[in-house]
Amino acid sequence: MGIVVVGSVAIDDVTTPFGKNHNAPGGSATYFSLSASNFTKVKLVAVVGEDFPKKYITLLKKKKVDIQGLEIKKGKTFRWKGSYDWDLDNAKTLATDLNLFKDFKPVLPKEYIKDDILFLANIDPELQLDVLKQSKAKIIAADTMNLWIEHKRSALLKVLKRIDIVILNEYEARQLTKEGNLLKAAKKIISWGTKKIVIKKGEDGVLFVSKDTFFASPAYLMEDVYDPTGAGDTFAGGFLGYLSKSSKINDAAIKKALAYGTVMASFTVESYDISSLSKQNNKSIEKRFKLFKKLCSF
Amino acid sequence: MGIVVVGSVAIDDVTTPFGKNHNAPGGSATYFSLSASNFTKVKLVAVVGEDFPKKYITLLKKKKVDIQGLEIKKGKTFRWKGSYDWDLDNAKTLATDLNLFKDFKPVLPKEYIKDDILFLANIDPELQLDVLKQSKAKIIAADTMNLWIEHKRSALLKVLKRIDIVILNEYEARQLTKEGNLLKAAKKIISWGTKKIVIKKGEDGVLFVSKDTFFASPAYLMEDVYDPTGAGDTFAGGFLGYLSKSSKINDAAIKKALAYGTVMASFTVESYDISSLSKQNNKSIEKRFKLFKKLCSF
Repeated sequence: MGIVVVGSVAIDDVTTPFGKNHNAPGGSATYFSLSASNFTKVKLVAVVGEDFPKKYITLLKKKKVDIQGLEIKKGKTFRWKGSYDWDLDNAKTLATDLNLFKDFKPVLPKEYIKDDILFLANIDPELQLDVLKQSKAKIIAADTMNLWIEHKRSALLKVLKRIDIVILNEYEARQLTKEGNLLKAAKKIISWGTKKIVIKKGEDGVLFVSKDTFFASPAYLMEDVYDPTGAGDTFAGGFLGYLSKSSKINDAAIKKALAYGTVMASFTVESYDISSLSKQNNKSIEKRFKLFKKLCSF
Repeated sequence: MGIVVVGSVAIDDVTTPFGKNHNAPGGSATYFSLSASNFTKVKLVAVVGEDFPKKYITLLKKKKVDIQGLEIKKGKTFRWKGSYDWDLDNAKTLATDLNLFKDFKPVLPKEYIKDDILFLANIDPELQLDVLKQSKAKIIAADTMNLWIEHKRSALLKVLKRIDIVILNEYEARQLTKEGNLLKAAKKIISWGTKKIVIKKGEDGVLFVSKDTFFASPAYLMEDVYDPTGAGDTFAGGFLGYLSKSSKINDAAIKKALAYGTVMASFTVESYDISSLSKQNNKSIEKRFKLFKKLCSF
């Protein structure tokens, strides 16, 4: 039961055209955990330094996230500094201080080995391969980024061969496969071994492609988007969180999971950092899910 | 009953990364008519020269399009030459020879005045205003383009004040309103008088916004898109064609109309020019509609 996530917990400095956010809690595993924990038991594997604010650890505990796998070490937490332009699309990285994350060697606690789902958030594909060796999860999902596509392609292809679901954005899908058409890009990744492909298109929605089928979903339309940081990991949290509690992973479950991922991501982008996401509960999530369903069903 | 469309019938030269198409039938009113005629009676107002191939006039007649309003004059038909880059997104205009279209003064035949829907396809907004004076249609819809937004803004704003539905693409919506967010852009146009806003996003689907509600729909996902020329007018034909035969224009009808517009546009982009679009019938349209519904309902 539940999901193990291996990724980063970070401190972010983000600038958007609407304002700045200094020393915000960030990192792929943070957003993922805060999102998925609304659906299922989440077990977190990451590393932070002693500078990481205690209140965010308290928040994770409040969300019932198992933090046995969160190492708190002497030294500094991974820091990311980025900015967005008016289109609020791809982030521009201004600075990355890996700090303790540089020597991160994820180790799954014994209790984390046999969970239903393992999510390898965006980390070095060589580390993802290390974690794959430790895990006996039934379903393995992974994310990646342009840096690894460019510099660690061979390790990344090994990961893709072994996993069930890859969740990546449209730029990464095109860069990885050298295909402009996203359906062709997805089919190429399937030919490399990954069974299910989820391509995130930001405010243009999401595509799902498997050997047998494909689905498309629009995003949740919003007038005010403040900060897309973490939206992709929040989506992955809602998507895999919902699948984790589904009795069967069939087409119907996947379509609903995509919708829950979309709904969760809409909370993240409507505020800076985790403030809106961390306030949500079953009631507010169900309310927005129903509205979203109404706005796109015909 | 039925739809009157006022627009261009043209001869196109189109180059895409996949090939060229010389002397193809084109123009906003051509694509619109071939699409909408699958749903309702279409009455066409446009002008062509004696050089316009007779076989396409025959095709329009075969589709039961009323061509009483199609003037066939001495001289040359409007010609457009354009190209697309690999993204198959916005067309680059290489040459425009207005020819007879330069002096086009649309006149509605008496039988065209009281139809249910008038669609003012992309023509000079001053001509759109002239047609508005002649029509007593219950619902008036219009399209426009970057040229008019830039050079005929004042006439265009007069049009927008008087119409019920505007159908434009995301670039035009942003250029017109100076708003990056499409929901805000739509609301600004509503504040100018247009009641219903349809924003086309190409392969990323379509948005609908009115004072009370909004919907989003993905596009029909395709592996092979050859030529997007005419896709927007084909969409408009399916959208308004379906609405024309709906007994009530409520939310449910609009959502289905958006889906039929999307389905019709998918036929246009899967071949060069009108060849796939003109082959469709009720059966093939219903088949793709059902598949599209299945691929995006959850």
